[in-house]
Amino acid sequence: MLQEGLILKIDCPDQPGLVAKIAGYVAQYEGNLVEFNQFTDKEGGRFFARLEIDTSGMTVGVEDFVTGFSVMGKAVGGKWHFRRLPYKMRTAVLVTKTDHCLNEILWRTRLGEMPIEVTSVIGNREDCREVAEREGLPFHHIEMSEDKEAGFREIEQLLQKQDVELVVLARFMQIVPQWMCETYEGRIINIHHSFLPAFIGANPYRKAFERGVKLIGATCHYVTGDLDAGPIIEQEVARVQHTHSAHDMVRLGRDCERSALAKGIRYHVQDRTIIHGRRAIVFGD
Amino acid sequence: MLQEGLILKIDCPDQPGLVAKIAGYVAQYEGNLVEFNQFTDKEGGRFFARLEIDTSGMTVGVEDFVTGFSVMGKAVGGKWHFRRLPYKMRTAVLVTKTDHCLNEILWRTRLGEMPIEVTSVIGNREDCREVAEREGLPFHHIEMSEDKEAGFREIEQLLQKQDVELVVLARFMQIVPQWMCETYEGRIINIHHSFLPAFIGANPYRKAFERGVKLIGATCHYVTGDLDAGPIIEQEVARVQHTHSAHDMVRLGRDCERSALAKGIRYHVQDRTIIHGRRAIVFGD
Amino acid sequence: MLQEGLILKIDCPDQPGLVAKIAGYVAQYEGNLVEFNQFTDKEGGRFFARLEIDTSGMTVGVEDFVTGFSVMGKAVGGKWHFRRLPYKMRTAVLVTKTDHCLNEILWRTRLGEMPIEVTSVIGNREDCREVAEREGLPFHHIEMSEDKEAGFREIEQLLQKQDVELVVLARFMQIVPQWMCETYEGRIINIHHSFLPAFIGANPYRKAFERGVKLIGATCHYVTGDLDAGPIIEQEVARVQHTHSAHDMVRLGRDCERSALAKGIRYHVQDRTIIHGRRAIVFGD
Amino acid sequence: MLQEGLILKIDCPDQPGLVAKIAGYVAQYEGNLVEFNQFTDKEGGRFFARLEIDTSGMTVGVEDFVTGFSVMGKAVGGKWHFRRLPYKMRTAVLVTKTDHCLNEILWRTRLGEMPIEVTSVIGNREDCREVAEREGLPFHHIEMSEDKEAGFREIEQLLQKQDVELVVLARFMQIVPQWMCETYEGRIINIHHSFLPAFIGANPYRKAFERGVKLIGATCHYVTGDLDAGPIIEQEVARVQHTHSAHDMVRLGRDCERSALAKGIRYHVQDRTIIHGRRAIVFGD
Repeated sequence: MLQEGLILKIDCPDQPGLVAKIAGYVAQYEGNLVEFNQFTDKEGGRFFARLEIDTSGMTVGVEDFVTGFSVMGKAVGGKWHFRRLPYKMRTAVLVTKTDHCLNEILWRTRLGEMPIEVTSVIGNREDCREVAEREGLPFHHIEMSEDKEAGFREIEQLLQKQDVELVVLARFMQIVPQWMCETYEGRIINIHHSFLPAFIGANPYRKAFERGVKLIGATCHYVTGDLDAGPIIEQEVARVQHTHSAHDMVRLGRDCERSALAKGIRYHVQDRTIIHGRRAIVFGD
Repeated sequence: MLQEGLILKIDCPDQPGLVAKIAGYVAQYEGNLVEFNQFTDKEGGRFFARLEIDTSGMTVGVEDFVTGFSVMGKAVGGKWHFRRLPYKMRTAVLVTKTDHCLNEILWRTRLGEMPIEVTSVIGNREDCREVAEREGLPFHHIEMSEDKEAGFREIEQLLQKQDVELVVLARFMQIVPQWMCETYEGRIINIHHSFLPAFIGANPYRKAFERGVKLIGATCHYVTGDLDAGPIIEQEVARVQHTHSAHDMVRLGRDCERSALAKGIRYHVQDRTIIHGRRAIVFGD
Repeated sequence: MLQEGLILKIDCPDQPGLVAKIAGYVAQYEGNLVEFNQFTDKEGGRFFARLEIDTSGMTVGVEDFVTGFSVMGKAVGGKWHFRRLPYKMRTAVLVTKTDHCLNEILWRTRLGEMPIEVTSVIGNREDCREVAEREGLPFHHIEMSEDKEAGFREIEQLLQKQDVELVVLARFMQIVPQWMCETYEGRIINIHHSFLPAFIGANPYRKAFERGVKLIGATCHYVTGDLDAGPIIEQEVARVQHTHSAHDMVRLGRDCERSALAKGIRYHVQDRTIIHGRRAIVFGD
Repeated sequence: MLQEGLILKIDCPDQPGLVAKIAGYVAQYEGNLVEFNQFTDKEGGRFFARLEIDTSGMTVGVEDFVTGFSVMGKAVGGKWHFRRLPYKMRTAVLVTKTDHCLNEILWRTRLGEMPIEVTSVIGNREDCREVAEREGLPFHHIEMSEDKEAGFREIEQLLQKQDVELVVLARFMQIVPQWMCETYEGRIINIHHSFLPAFIGANPYRKAFERGVKLIGATCHYVTGDLDAGPIIEQEVARVQHTHSAHDMVRLGRDCERSALAKGIRYHVQDRTIIHGRRAIVFGD
């Protein structure tokens, strides 16, 4: 991916000449189109695109370029979004007990694989405090055992105060209330420890063990008010056999969870995803 | 696997000394234990084993060896089964319209990968007749559009007349009635075109497309009266993305189906499977 | 993929405005750009693209459209190629002894997965005659045990007479001479039964067994004068373990070979590949 | 795996009655055979087995049981090894610059997935000091830029002083001298960042990129004097395509490396591996 420049995501009703129009706008001001991904949903008649634009040789300022695009964007009936690079997305990580997903996010962030800035780690238990704090991150313990609703209001105040753009549920074992799903629509990413839509709800590894499946998995998805049914970003599976107990499945599943969540976040913060009804378009890297 | 000799499958309540007892019986008569697989279900307290025995140097006849084992078998409270090798399992293949699974079975049978003898191909449509007949196999068309029950009775008469041990549903699009599931318990293998338990029932690829999953799959399982819920023998998955239509998923899924079904049949006819409640123990090769 | 219309493949030195220019040309004559794939090799400074164009609403004739493109194609210093759809590529399949790859090609061709027309099957042994002939295809036996060079000249005459565009080596166990590699540059596809570049040359499964690898594989690649070193189109792997003999690896490897070859051919005949030095750009589906 | 008890690994020339003899010995003293894995190399005529024995109900002391086994062990011409559980293997981790493998080992050790005790982290650079020290582990910097031989002698003194049983090369970028390979035969595990035997030596990702492979990988193997040719314990692969630069391959490869190394160490410390010439028998879990 580009280090500096612009990413443009756009979707609109399908119509002739879209690629020419959009690429033409970029060329007109001598932006260099480094990457162009496009997809047309023929059933739904909708066009989706993602452009990486090297702006270093442009004949107009970046902000003028962005502003000027709105004429075309409106003309084609589109929804679009520009991202200025370099960019680090302000991200809160919500956890409960297990730290493997948190650990993975922090490690990949340190490596530069994930262009995010973790604003804080928020837990409804104390278990992950140490992992957060030794990374130099604030850890907020929110008590949720009595009044969940109050807990979520407290979380939302933290998110607002810390100017959080993305919320990652890194094995956060509470159901996010409807109002919060709506406030952060398309901005809450969850890792579910099953191969959705199989084994929705609690204890998926136990259910997988009892059903005798030969593959277990994990699913990274956007959170919506419809539990475990939001648009899927990424899925991973691992082979299991009769020798594996439910406990072994938990162990093997952790690796799926870490991998699927890390990929899902990366796709999101690199603006590679566009939500399209119940599905997510993912322009992979 | 052994070309000649015996395969012994046994399961019984777990108890000390089982391996020594069973292997000791084989050693006593100078059978050569070529392969020994064992599994103990600690939760359920049950022991499962599979032995490949080279009988060429035995000091007793094979039939005496088999008969004599029953004393020990009963003493440990076991269920057991001996298979004399070489062996080809008499197998009927039931089909409807698509021939990819049938084609795969026939090709692997010809290669010697599947120690089966296909007795006939039975279809509720005519579509697969040519594939069967050019392989030199009888094809029986059973009309099922009006009276399904009569159709299944006719199928069962064919199975009996042809002395069929195993029934393979190779994309056979009819629900097998309860009485037939019971008659052929543990002897009907189906390929389901989804990653069970997701997308049970009809049109799984369409459902997978609409749900926006990133992996599709196929499941080979034993058929029970509980639709699509029998013990799973093998599963395969393939990656999909937003560019794939439901039609593409059908195409990619075919490869999962062929592979999972072929492996499932192979495990069964090599006596590598033991049904254990809702699950199947599979001693892989 | 489109059923009717045009596919354009083009590669040229990278320069600003390429996407706009090319898409603009299509839009100018009201072609509908159904799919657009683009890749820029930043190291080499080269641009590669593949376009699927629905020509049904175009304001000019297809041939005029194609002819007219050459002005732009030359202006950008490009190499380009138009394909009129529907299209079936005339393809000869060369075999020796084993028929699993041939069988796979024929089955997928019948299904419509591979838009090819198999002109004939050519073997330096008789083993695959039956598989070819029962499919209604001519089988040519070319004797190569004495004078290989004469054999290849005979093959080339057949290819010319049958107006063959693509040559598939479906486990053809002879080394194609340099002159033939040059004549059919970028038009001979081979399946190598190893995970190239490991185990180049003969007996890769034996070598893999002796080396004790935990994964075996197969590689589909373009044939060049440099043995087993041509551009790779697709690779598949399968897990093996100590229990697998070299013979088992042959069996498991067959599935990798079938799958990798089928995908490789499909990518080629759908004009999804562009050879770029020692590598192949593959715009996957 | 068992929490308490014994693991027995044995290999010997193949001969009739081995399973009965070994299991019989365990049964005689009322050891409970929880898991029994066996493999016979038919080509080489050698028998390999691994037993997990619950000793809680045994009629003799564990040390007597172990001592007494030597009569049988010698009688069958075997090499054998008993491990008393619970056990944590004293392990030194050698590193250079990158910390992803080290991080993985430490995280899994904390979780209890790896029954090891990391004695220290030894680096020929300072880069990994912080990761080690914040875990509370001693970090030793050994200067190797001038006199490598002196560096390795220093390392060996550390290993001896810390009573190290296993040495893990976690992306340690120095070639271990012959004498050290011999001293620690079967006790040095390396992670190589390629799909061995492809791309032996330095810069495998660059080589993989230039060769245009479609899958990259990592290999966990025992270190011998023969560079990158020791017995392979585990391998992982990841799909790549033309869009991935050599730099992307490094990123994707890291995940293969972490996974293959972690599995390889786990198999070793659970006594699941037996070296057999150039290959490793791995009784998987």
